[in-house]
Amino acid sequence: MSSTSESPIFNNIRVVLCQTSHPGNIGSTARAMKTMGLNRLYLVRPKHFPDGEAKSLAVNAGDVLDHAVVTQTLEEALADCQFVIGVSGKERSLSQQVMTVREAAQEVKAVASHSEVALVFGTEMSGLSNAEADRCHVLATIPANPEYTSLNLAQAVQVMCYETRMAVTTGELHYQEKPVELATQEDLERFYEHMREVLEHIGYINPRAPKKLFERLRRLYGRTRLEKEEVNLLRGILTLTVNPKKHSKY
Amino acid sequence: MSSTSESPIFNNIRVVLCQTSHPGNIGSTARAMKTMGLNRLYLVRPKHFPDGEAKSLAVNAGDVLDHAVVTQTLEEALADCQFVIGVSGKERSLSQQVMTVREAAQEVKAVASHSEVALVFGTEMSGLSNAEADRCHVLATIPANPEYTSLNLAQAVQVMCYETRMAVTTGELHYQEKPVELATQEDLERFYEHMREVLEHIGYINPRAPKKLFERLRRLYGRTRLEKEEVNLLRGILTLTVNPKKHSKY
Repeated sequence: MSSTSESPIFNNIRVVLCQTSHPGNIGSTARAMKTMGLNRLYLVRPKHFPDGEAKSLAVNAGDVLDHAVVTQTLEEALADCQFVIGVSGKERSLSQQVMTVREAAQEVKAVASHSEVALVFGTEMSGLSNAEADRCHVLATIPANPEYTSLNLAQAVQVMCYETRMAVTTGELHYQEKPVELATQEDLERFYEHMREVLEHIGYINPRAPKKLFERLRRLYGRTRLEKEEVNLLRGILTLTVNPKKHSKY
Repeated sequence: MSSTSESPIFNNIRVVLCQTSHPGNIGSTARAMKTMGLNRLYLVRPKHFPDGEAKSLAVNAGDVLDHAVVTQTLEEALADCQFVIGVSGKERSLSQQVMTVREAAQEVKAVASHSEVALVFGTEMSGLSNAEADRCHVLATIPANPEYTSLNLAQAVQVMCYETRMAVTTGELHYQEKPVELATQEDLERFYEHMREVLEHIGYINPRAPKKLFERLRRLYGRTRLEKEEVNLLRGILTLTVNPKKHSKY
């Protein structure tokens, strides 16, 4: 699947489609990806797949479909990812960081040289759900006509993949950023779960209605792109919050 | 057809499709144009038009189809144009100026404020013919995977119109981001001080040698660009870490 002349960065980037209804859009997505040098497609609970129409619209990008990974949940599709970008046309009142796809592509370029990156797209009808958006570290938006923002799914994929290619193949940085190991989505989910337990323990959130405050905390840490080691530091604090060391001077 | 909030520049730009075979691509083109603020579509000898499939794929951009101008020749479609850009995936040996669509979009922006501009696209199968390319003042190319450059017609239109919009609006998002109040340096220092006290309290850092771990935490929160409100959330956690609520269930 890898091509000789292309940047290895492309191999660290996956496109994730959530619950796609029309198989034609899956085929068009494969074609859009391949024209921009991307090959790794993940499908979360697609309505129809494999499918003849998908194959037909993929034209010569059938290999992308052949290697597509189908999962039952978004969590599975993201488990080993260190940076997750949700592409969304919706206006959201959430305090999650929002940037343009052009800005997001620069982040993708910076991170994908050493880490796994996911570009996540929602359904044709309503885009990313709030629960799906919560799994993303940042949201990327395609600037559009405010009176008609409704891009077709495969066209949104085309624009995001195009911007990614433009970022990766031009304007290379003249220095090497120190490679750090970012936390995976799985690390983060364990950390969030740990945090929730501790925050309930200290009475910060009500176990029966924890939603709002906790979501804000998820968003805060989500946009930070935590390193593996930093997650360990934070979990060390959580552990000691519940069981302080005996030699504490207080 | 014109929208109130959009730049008048968009009204001086037309998309011209040459001899399109599949009416679905005409519909998808209308949708792609409208999402990017363009409204004026010219169709040179389309195989089928008007057409139900075009209408269906245009979704809510039916008005672009309703106002489309059908001509028998490319010359007619370009008669009153002052700047003509051919969008082409082909490599050409012609001496015509070739640029990326991003560069071309900057030219479009400069010219379309006072003159009529056309973005011309060829057929699905073979793109612009040499005769059609000769009618264009410059050729614009979409950077693509050298091993698979074949963008779908409507997706090529999407990318060109997107770049045009990015150039004209200088990449503004279509909504106002909620203004958030970031924490001041003073807020942060108070937060760090509070955190240090609490981490000593729970035995996470040694009051006599706190330096290294604590610096890492500062760095983590420092890069996050915390909002004022988020600092308050985090300090709420710190306060409860030392004095859990009495009704804590543990």
